[in-house]
Amino acid sequence: MSTTTFAAVSAVKQRSEHAFDVDLSSQWTIGGRPNGGYLLATIGRAAGAVGPHPDVLAASAHYLRSPEPGPAEVEVEPLRAGRGASQVRARLLKDGVPCVEALLTLGTLPAEGQARWAGGLPDPRPTDPDGGVRVPSQTPTGTAAAIFDEVGARLDPESVRTFTEGPRGVGELWGWLTLPGDEPFDPVSLLFAVDAFPPATFDIAASGWVPTLELTAYVRARPAPGPVRVLHRAQLIDDGRVDESCFVWDRTGRLVVQSTQLAGIRLD
Amino acid sequence: MSTTTFAAVSAVKQRSEHAFDVDLSSQWTIGGRPNGGYLLATIGRAAGAVGPHPDVLAASAHYLRSPEPGPAEVEVEPLRAGRGASQVRARLLKDGVPCVEALLTLGTLPAEGQARWAGGLPDPRPTDPDGGVRVPSQTPTGTAAAIFDEVGARLDPESVRTFTEGPRGVGELWGWLTLPGDEPFDPVSLLFAVDAFPPATFDIAASGWVPTLELTAYVRARPAPGPVRVLHRAQLIDDGRVDESCFVWDRTGRLVVQSTQLAGIRLD
Repeated sequence: MSTTTFAAVSAVKQRSEHAFDVDLSSQWTIGGRPNGGYLLATIGRAAGAVGPHPDVLAASAHYLRSPEPGPAEVEVEPLRAGRGASQVRARLLKDGVPCVEALLTLGTLPAEGQARWAGGLPDPRPTDPDGGVRVPSQTPTGTAAAIFDEVGARLDPESVRTFTEGPRGVGELWGWLTLPGDEPFDPVSLLFAVDAFPPATFDIAASGWVPTLELTAYVRARPAPGPVRVLHRAQLIDDGRVDESCFVWDRTGRLVVQSTQLAGIRLD
Repeated sequence: MSTTTFAAVSAVKQRSEHAFDVDLSSQWTIGGRPNGGYLLATIGRAAGAVGPHPDVLAASAHYLRSPEPGPAEVEVEPLRAGRGASQVRARLLKDGVPCVEALLTLGTLPAEGQARWAGGLPDPRPTDPDGGVRVPSQTPTGTAAAIFDEVGARLDPESVRTFTEGPRGVGELWGWLTLPGDEPFDPVSLLFAVDAFPPATFDIAASGWVPTLELTAYVRARPAPGPVRVLHRAQLIDDGRVDESCFVWDRTGRLVVQSTQLAGIRLD
């Protein structure tokens, strides 16, 4: 059961004009290291506090080192402040050593609206958010994944077979995600949502955790309250690297954030 | 007919340890402004010259301002140099003003190899590289696109209908791309390849050019000589922004680079 809230573990405290303190939770971890989307969300929260625009529209992060949990710092460097959008460079440091480097474009997401055209997206195939099976807090290879005691990541029955019967070879995982205490998602926590599920590569072949090298997320709309629908899709494994796309819809079926990541993978 | 080569227009000249001069071609432009993938390629070339690893594996660029053609500068700041990969921050400046900010992860792509798994990719649907119709050097709304006098961007007959008969509403453009003089593609020019085609949104609705806000490219393999097969796919238009995925295969059918971009779009 969860002992933390997303608002608490991702809180940033302004120390100076462009520097923020953050306390990385030991619970939001896989193998004892903070989840990459969680780290990006702390960066996004700091970035939104600095400039004229509150909402992250696009965030690109390169992962240099995996920090230990505990106190860390986020630095934000404004790059340009335009009328409709602004850009910042931001990075997360642990003991003064850069761990995640990011560039972000910020703007203001409207309170309401609807997509103009969504013809190129996968069908979100809505299922029962309370159905499926919760991802356990241990990976198939036995690594502790404490984060799944905090967030509710429920895999659809079809996707669960990856874990109960072994990889299906499809490279897709479908499910629903909730924050502790059903905290509503917002544009900051959506940066976490795109990296919350287990790697879709678990549906291709058994491997250890796949460390993220690069993650780019586009926040497309403010989410309606409630759980979000998640699709993780692996596309290509080549030369020890895999790319994964992620699509996240809110309860109304509106796509609210999407991402792509490149990660390292070791297969036998 | 082309008057330039990619090697020439993307050449960088080292001025100091971490700064490079580049001369942005007035020919590799749309509406008089250099193409965004071309700008990223000059950044990638400089980044590969600085650190221990020559090949860009992942590049994320945020576009702040569109520079005029002519002399410009690329600055590279090393962030981390690991055994298998290194990361840099790099940016392109015009008259000292930052225009493109980027983060890059570099490594060493093997000379040969093949994908381990490619089950999540679209089918490249190979066609005749000499078939189809060359993209004209003027957009549907009358903007000059001088770059299409330089590179050979040939759309498949099915995709050409977007231009001859109007948008089909599919949001996909398929075709083949060649560099001037059939210069072979390499990991640097692949950074250009993902942004070379007209926007896939032309297949959804008539609009002006769509300015790129963010572009992320993953170089997956060294390309075989010859033209490359290109798919541009728009996925979602919401709140005046569109995301587009791009997939590029070499003549052997191997995926060599892929990208995603977020761009601004104005529709009536």
